Amino acid sequence: MEHIKHAMIATWKMSLEGMQKASDDLFVNDDRKAALLTAITDVENNPVYHYVGYGGFPNGHGIVETDASYMDGNTMQFGAVAGLRDIASPIAVAMELSGKTKDCFLCGEGAKQYAVEHGFESKEMLSDYARQQYEQHRKNIMEHDTVCMIAKDSEGLSCGVSTSGLPFKHPGRVGDSPVIGSGFYCDSIVGSAAATGNGEDVMRGCLSLSVVTHMKMGMGVQQACETALAQHLERLATTGYQAGDISVIAMDRYGHCGVATDMKQFPFVMMDDEHHNAAVYVCTNEDGTMHIQKADDYWLSQWQGD
Amino acid sequence: MEHIKHAMIATWKMSLEGMQKASDDLFVNDDRKAALLTAITDVENNPVYHYVGYGGFPNGHGIVETDASYMDGNTMQFGAVAGLRDIASPIAVAMELSGKTKDCFLCGEGAKQYAVEHGFESKEMLSDYARQQYEQHRKNIMEHDTVCMIAKDSEGLSCGVSTSGLPFKHPGRVGDSPVIGSGFYCDSIVGSAAATGNGEDVMRGCLSLSVVTHMKMGMGVQQACETALAQHLERLATTGYQAGDISVIAMDRYGHCGVATDMKQFPFVMMDDEHHNAAVYVCTNEDGTMHIQKADDYWLSQWQGD
Repeated sequence: MEHIKHAMIATWKMSLEGMQKASDDLFVNDDRKAALLTAITDVENNPVYHYVGYGGFPNGHGIVETDASYMDGNTMQFGAVAGLRDIASPIAVAMELSGKTKDCFLCGEGAKQYAVEHGFESKEMLSDYARQQYEQHRKNIMEHDTVCMIAKDSEGLSCGVSTSGLPFKHPGRVGDSPVIGSGFYCDSIVGSAAATGNGEDVMRGCLSLSVVTHMKMGMGVQQACETALAQHLERLATTGYQAGDISVIAMDRYGHCGVATDMKQFPFVMMDDEHHNAAVYVCTNEDGTMHIQKADDYWLSQWQGD
Repeated sequence: MEHIKHAMIATWKMSLEGMQKASDDLFVNDDRKAALLTAITDVENNPVYHYVGYGGFPNGHGIVETDASYMDGNTMQFGAVAGLRDIASPIAVAMELSGKTKDCFLCGEGAKQYAVEHGFESKEMLSDYARQQYEQHRKNIMEHDTVCMIAKDSEGLSCGVSTSGLPFKHPGRVGDSPVIGSGFYCDSIVGSAAATGNGEDVMRGCLSLSVVTHMKMGMGVQQACETALAQHLERLATTGYQAGDISVIAMDRYGHCGVATDMKQFPFVMMDDEHHNAAVYVCTNEDGTMHIQKADDYWLSQWQGD
């Protein structure tokens, strides 16, 4: 199979600009961690996206709380934060924590304290628009568009995830994004996967690890995504439970990508050695069969989501 | 294979009294959830055990913060708390949260708020002894003896975990105990597993899900424990990292139990339909081969740990 030296995949159309900005990090500097930091902080800093970083919808008390994670598939080390308040870049804190062998997953006030002590920028994360939406609607929106990215350089794979979580969630709610095996997993010897959607549903099946495990057993990356998601939805269905929106992206050790969703359409972004310009693709789910194609201008002009 | 209607397994000798108290819940009332609540709260309430509930060692700021989780293998629903302060029974809060389909994993101040609002008992969790140890030693102890229990009744499997985490940890540190797939996993169609030891090391391999996945692929429960642990340690070793203490307990869908450890000796507790008296067993690790036998009076008199 063809080996791709540099590749990157991310959830949702909103990742497009950030990934393009990470182009030099990946293709020139061969630095997957820097590429993930550049691309994910770009989404975090953009107030237009209401489920990640600044401008994210607040919790049920009107306060933005973020979850983030980073995993290095070479060292298998990871860092994560949950329920983090008032820190501009949650992914940067998760990356810092991934260098530690203990206390690498921090939540709430302790996570904030760590970030402040280590010089991470403090920021009021609630935008005016998000505050208005909170005041006017303050209802449960089950949408939840997390930014998940996987990057490969010549040395291996890493992944990163950042989100402000379920809008108007209970204070302190931890979604799948900072939970290893559920929101993300990365093993450079096998591959990596990351998930977006209803976090509680993703967690019940530890979906990201499940995708990687299917790859480990010899399945191709696209088949692994489809099989892991289908098995998980079937298992939940046996309990009488209908899962909410779930989408998963993955990359194998060679840089090949896979995607699966239980939504009708799920956009994602990719770039690699042959395509230095990041582009939006769409995974269309027709009765459980995934069709992937590049988004054309018409599709891009029609898409209402992130 | 022989089917066992009622069975229960738990980590460490400290679970003995609690499990015995849960005997009626399990064998008379056929209620695995009640049995787990009775047994785990018994450990939580006992100030003699310094890694669980009241009397647990505090974090680096002298405050006890607890992690707990509960998963029902029939519904696949779970609840978890992390960094919870001042609440007497963390496992009871996790059980309550497991009835929800969203906001089922709460951390920090938000978790405490939920517990208080839902009538869970408030309690100063720092014992005089733990306070003295904190003031005198305040050093990193890498020991970490979490109570993990799995129970089977005639309907299916459930598991529960409770801990005060790594002594003198960073405030807000989340260990493996509330992290689905790492500290615990439960699927009544396959089996359940739960882990104790160095949480960060357990998480890197999502050890509990790995054990259950090996059972799902057809492996016996004891072999699944040994294989999952060995593969995980080998993968970490390839990165040059030597994992700390890790032990795992498991139960298959028929009520048969398995155990594996990388320590020299790891005690655990079991009872089932043929053995209504809970008893301590020891898993002895001889160069990676596990030998399991009932603890005799001599062993019990010599054991210094929990």
